[in-house]
Amino acid sequence: MLNLRILEQQILLPGTKGLALTQPLQQQNIGEQRWNVLNADTSFPVAVLKHSALQHNLQWMKNFCETMHVVLAPHGKTTMSPQLFDLQLKNGAWGITLATVNQTLIAHRYGVKRILLANQLINRSDTQAVLALLKNDPEFDFFALTDSLEGVHRLELEVQRSGLERPLPLLVELGFPGGRTGCRSQTDALSIARAIKQSPYLTLAGIEGYEGLIVGKHREQDLIAVKSFINDLIALTQQADQEGLFGAKEILLSAGGSAYFDLVGRGFEQITQLSRPTTAILRSGCYVTHDHGFYKHLLDDMQARESAVEVDNLRPALEVWSMVQSRPEPDLAILTMGKRDASYDIDLPLPFQTHRPGSSSMPTKLPGGCKIEKMNDQHAYLRLPKDSDICQTLQVGDLVACGISHPCTTFDKWPLILVVDDRYQVESAINTFF
Amino acid sequence: MLNLRILEQQILLPGTKGLALTQPLQQQNIGEQRWNVLNADTSFPVAVLKHSALQHNLQWMKNFCETMHVVLAPHGKTTMSPQLFDLQLKNGAWGITLATVNQTLIAHRYGVKRILLANQLINRSDTQAVLALLKNDPEFDFFALTDSLEGVHRLELEVQRSGLERPLPLLVELGFPGGRTGCRSQTDALSIARAIKQSPYLTLAGIEGYEGLIVGKHREQDLIAVKSFINDLIALTQQADQEGLFGAKEILLSAGGSAYFDLVGRGFEQITQLSRPTTAILRSGCYVTHDHGFYKHLLDDMQARESAVEVDNLRPALEVWSMVQSRPEPDLAILTMGKRDASYDIDLPLPFQTHRPGSSSMPTKLPGGCKIEKMNDQHAYLRLPKDSDICQTLQVGDLVACGISHPCTTFDKWPLILVVDDRYQVESAINTFF
Repeated sequence: MLNLRILEQQILLPGTKGLALTQPLQQQNIGEQRWNVLNADTSFPVAVLKHSALQHNLQWMKNFCETMHVVLAPHGKTTMSPQLFDLQLKNGAWGITLATVNQTLIAHRYGVKRILLANQLINRSDTQAVLALLKNDPEFDFFALTDSLEGVHRLELEVQRSGLERPLPLLVELGFPGGRTGCRSQTDALSIARAIKQSPYLTLAGIEGYEGLIVGKHREQDLIAVKSFINDLIALTQQADQEGLFGAKEILLSAGGSAYFDLVGRGFEQITQLSRPTTAILRSGCYVTHDHGFYKHLLDDMQARESAVEVDNLRPALEVWSMVQSRPEPDLAILTMGKRDASYDIDLPLPFQTHRPGSSSMPTKLPGGCKIEKMNDQHAYLRLPKDSDICQTLQVGDLVACGISHPCTTFDKWPLILVVDDRYQVESAINTFF
Repeated sequence: MLNLRILEQQILLPGTKGLALTQPLQQQNIGEQRWNVLNADTSFPVAVLKHSALQHNLQWMKNFCETMHVVLAPHGKTTMSPQLFDLQLKNGAWGITLATVNQTLIAHRYGVKRILLANQLINRSDTQAVLALLKNDPEFDFFALTDSLEGVHRLELEVQRSGLERPLPLLVELGFPGGRTGCRSQTDALSIARAIKQSPYLTLAGIEGYEGLIVGKHREQDLIAVKSFINDLIALTQQADQEGLFGAKEILLSAGGSAYFDLVGRGFEQITQLSRPTTAILRSGCYVTHDHGFYKHLLDDMQARESAVEVDNLRPALEVWSMVQSRPEPDLAILTMGKRDASYDIDLPLPFQTHRPGSSSMPTKLPGGCKIEKMNDQHAYLRLPKDSDICQTLQVGDLVACGISHPCTTFDKWPLILVVDDRYQVESAINTFF
């Protein structure tokens, strides 16, 4: 569907992170090398995506959205990978959500034709870049958010200057006190919607909110706050429709990060008939790889409260493997992995299995209590449970697999990530653009 | 000195982070565009290097090393930028230090001919990649560390297999209890040095340690610990020399991160005459851009204790500029900058000035109390002092400049960084390879 040929045909040079190349290699020939992570054929650290888990998650979310009568515009900022965007679109995604204009330009370069910029579009230069794209490609659908009259006036001016012959579609962003962007009241949001309606250069395409930041200490309170916020979004949409402010053929209603998309789906079911067709759009980005930490816990909770979540829940697809490079103290192993290689913003990497290259068995589970206790730029400190067997057995040259918590901040550390089968045989690679 | 032409001639595509391109642009033509950050001609966020501060820092460190009779192999993992490696080598650097084999392959690609891998070299595939480089380029000097007999035996085997016709030069790494890699005792270090001496495939080139991790709560205690560790390195070097274990023409003695390189320099002055010429090598990487936080404080302290530190100390060269995209609450501004754009591992970014594009004045200093209190992947929360003037004046579309703390974790977020003059006129760009 997307134009991925240029990526398959590119020449990877020695020095490509994750690979141990001695000669240039065309990317499409990676599978032929018959590399296996467990045989230490790659460089370490190496980031891998498990093919089976990816496929499972794509199908899972497709089923989920069908059950909930919503469409998916997965947040592409998570992976920024054209190959994954392609898989998401092939699995029914309505479009791709992005966070910046440069992310938009990259996705469009590879053929994404419908983009929701889930962010304010303020800077003149960035705005001009995206308007140039819209002018040159009549098939390109692009939507942005706005939460201020200043923002509306800036956009109006730039669209006028650009000579674009179609109005720029905007979604008014509703927020909540203590939140991030977004109007703090229905009154403010409506005044912005009315200003858009007044402009020949802009059109009100929908209403948007982001509930994913509502993560406090008490899950029950979070859930109540999320439901209340979704109700506010619906009320705003209905009010704007009653005033006849929407200007496109359909009304877009969008929310849904990776934490509460079930509540968003259920909430959106409550919307009563509007004056024109309504499309409810979820924007979860993390589902595609899921994780071993932050999102695992959130999805376990979702499974407990929502019957539409399949028993076979999302699976963690992203792992970072590194090698023990030093065993300087009985309960300490230093790994070839650091802040440059794995997320450390929510949790440090989560070590879960080990393998000795050359052994024909599959990796063995690490005992409980093994923990990455610190990372430097290029090193991780793996603390072993004192006096445990693993203190005796773990050697220099052994591999350690870590799960991660929050995939976004691992993806941006890897321009190329290997796709592996369940035996860690390398099948192919995906590229990222950060 | 290095081969930078391929970088100057490369074509930058729309979507290149930091630039607001509508057309492809050859990198060497960036200066001709007459972009100015203060005029919002770039994309936001944008990372910039101040040319004058860079030049100052390069000269500063050159003077410092001359005063201390040491050479510099700056840690290239900080920037991973061939253009900055080139400037460092032109300013007298002995070689470049790196942390991984893939970093080594990249530096060699651009012409770096002497590399100190300040890390263990354990993995077979990575080792083979670097040995292939050594075989194919007789002018390439490469040194690695070792801290275990396992490591020595693995390297011996790989060098033998590779057919390399010169022994691989190694430095034995001394560590300290509670530290990272490195032998925990002189006894262990000497047994490794002896094993290297025994091997026809390896040669003992020197002794290495890394004191930069000694950052505790009490600076005075840290300084005592650093001095003691430097003395241990010297004692080990002298012992190994007395046993005739060194195998190369000169003895390398290396330590020195970016925190205490004065103490390392002063400590290395104490070494008594060895059997062959000795080169003392510092490896500071952060000096080249310095910072506004972690290293600023450390260098202020260094200036207070060491007369060789010039009155005109290192200057922060790296800044990240973003735009106010939303002013949802009176004391809150949301900036177009997040975890993808600026360091957050030691401190969050440090906002210090603001500018309204279109104004002809220079940026104005932000009042005290302005603080980035949180970052998401693509957003920063700038909290303003309650009821201050800035709450009234800061608008959507204004620019905010942030200093950073720990340059390494900002460099790895930017494949391209703009070089600007003191008026933020864009002169050129450097590339990074992570």
